[in-house]
Amino acid sequence: MTMKTMMTTQLENGRETQVLLADGLKDLSSHLGEYGRNVLWVFDTNTAKLFKQLPPSNVVLESGESSKTFSSLERILGAALDEGLARDGRIIGFGGGVVCDMAALAASVYMRGCRLTLVPTTLLAMVDASVGGKTAIDFKGMKNMVGSFYPASEVLLSIDTLRTLNDKEFLNGLAEVIKHALLSQNEELYKFLLIKKNEILSRQPEALTTLVELSLMVKKWFIEQDPTETKGIRQFLNLGHTFGHALESSSHYGMWGHGACVAWGTCRALEAGIAIGIGDKAYASGATKLFKSYGYEIDYRIGRGDWIEFRDHLLKDKKKADGKVLFVLLEKQGTASLHPLELQLVQHLVIAKPIF
Amino acid sequence: MTMKTMMTTQLENGRETQVLLADGLKDLSSHLGEYGRNVLWVFDTNTAKLFKQLPPSNVVLESGESSKTFSSLERILGAALDEGLARDGRIIGFGGGVVCDMAALAASVYMRGCRLTLVPTTLLAMVDASVGGKTAIDFKGMKNMVGSFYPASEVLLSIDTLRTLNDKEFLNGLAEVIKHALLSQNEELYKFLLIKKNEILSRQPEALTTLVELSLMVKKWFIEQDPTETKGIRQFLNLGHTFGHALESSSHYGMWGHGACVAWGTCRALEAGIAIGIGDKAYASGATKLFKSYGYEIDYRIGRGDWIEFRDHLLKDKKKADGKVLFVLLEKQGTASLHPLELQLVQHLVIAKPIF
Repeated sequence: MTMKTMMTTQLENGRETQVLLADGLKDLSSHLGEYGRNVLWVFDTNTAKLFKQLPPSNVVLESGESSKTFSSLERILGAALDEGLARDGRIIGFGGGVVCDMAALAASVYMRGCRLTLVPTTLLAMVDASVGGKTAIDFKGMKNMVGSFYPASEVLLSIDTLRTLNDKEFLNGLAEVIKHALLSQNEELYKFLLIKKNEILSRQPEALTTLVELSLMVKKWFIEQDPTETKGIRQFLNLGHTFGHALESSSHYGMWGHGACVAWGTCRALEAGIAIGIGDKAYASGATKLFKSYGYEIDYRIGRGDWIEFRDHLLKDKKKADGKVLFVLLEKQGTASLHPLELQLVQHLVIAKPIF
Repeated sequence: MTMKTMMTTQLENGRETQVLLADGLKDLSSHLGEYGRNVLWVFDTNTAKLFKQLPPSNVVLESGESSKTFSSLERILGAALDEGLARDGRIIGFGGGVVCDMAALAASVYMRGCRLTLVPTTLLAMVDASVGGKTAIDFKGMKNMVGSFYPASEVLLSIDTLRTLNDKEFLNGLAEVIKHALLSQNEELYKFLLIKKNEILSRQPEALTTLVELSLMVKKWFIEQDPTETKGIRQFLNLGHTFGHALESSSHYGMWGHGACVAWGTCRALEAGIAIGIGDKAYASGATKLFKSYGYEIDYRIGRGDWIEFRDHLLKDKKKADGKVLFVLLEKQGTASLHPLELQLVQHLVIAKPIF
């Protein structure tokens, strides 16, 4: 076995996530083969195709967000029970964010918690769903409404899977990387994104490896300080997500990817920071340009007729206090804070002409 | 507000459960009334009857084990969402073990965790489901197969609710109390049970209060040392449950209550300890007599024809290592240990003539 440890996150309760870097899919398979029995694999219809023959104990979910349901959860749990998986058994999620989320949620509740390995195969899953332990399903049309905190003991990365993604899927993850760059306590990732744009967009393996590592280092900083999002720190990782999720949930924007919505939402949050007088204008302008340089449709405005639906989705957001929706805003590099915004201001920011 | 703090458990992650003692149902209601909005109540058809008018946000489950399902979970979560409950909202479980389990599981996954108050109204729920944070539903005919660890922030006890239970329901909880007495590091509860039998069975309030408090002190000792049952300590609270659950799950024994099964199972575990040479015979004999003195059917043998089904349920137990079912056995007062037992010995213990 030739896997290298890229990183280890230490969470409370002695829980630790080891992030291991595989030298290609073969290396990955041989590592996973070592588990033997007492495992259940979770794929989606895309990642199942990567195998000539699937491992004997497996569940294959339909690819896509529509699989983040109670019914998928019950399928995985039922399969685990049918396989006779015990508490010391392991669920292996092999796929994108949906597969990782579903495998992790199932592992968190199967016999009140069994072992969990995640093999994220998309950039979004690598930098977002793989470490940190957030699991969730959508419920009654609301994204990530039901879930748990359950860190994987092991995350296995094979950078070459990133070279098979289409551009939209790649940009889905890259938006989270750029968001991490803005939230980082240092400028390393931000500068890397500025300097290595061509290498990243042409998916050179070394550039991608560094990109994923630097992005995970930022996430690690937040989740180690606040593993269950109760200390007012981890929530800053939601930068851009309140605006972004509302867009993603609104029916007219179904073809926008998660990343496109997060990029758009992050720029709205930057504008909101300026509007309420806490944001650094030069920094916000530079960050917006960075998103644009990677091809995100930042200037997009939602139609006036879509505002009511957009607002209704906003009002169901999880980040609420005393009934008011809270937004993560950015003052400058690495300095986020939480603010309630008046609905009129929000409406203005998503409908009116962009600032930059 | 006149509630007294009976006990506080300190779990990891700064999580704390306060156990408060109410001076009657009125006192309890006025305390709960202070929460105002942003709460969802969970009752069952029995406890809903205790109120002339139910609080506006409520879910009423059918009473009984058949409500420990995904469908009940989805009902509670759906109601919470319809009420607009945020992450700082609170779910209040008011009822027996099933209501407490379902309310706690729902609270543990609603937005990845909202606030939780439990008001256990049966002896079993008070000493078993109220502190310690184990939540679960039954799945594919297996008890407590899916769940989480999620301690309530607050447990409210009103001892007078114990006086309204029928005898079978009271004995359901008392079996867990006697089990706690055997597992305790001291003999206080054991002696109390020996000396105060008449006061307990006639449900004198002072005796019941002491009974619940001493029993919770034992549970506290185990859960504080091993909150998520990963350190090999908390699992000892399952004394009697491997035998007991198998009996409870076998179709012919549907009319046996949980407590009757646990009492029966604990005595089988005591016998198993003697059979493999680790158990103190005099202690096992005394403990068996204690169970009998409270009216439990300890001598019951399962029919030969029921063995296969009993065995199949055993083999699905969560406490497994390397494919072997593990049993909690007792050497003497407060000294438990985990052992794999050969199926032939198990068969002998549940079918053959009792030792004592």
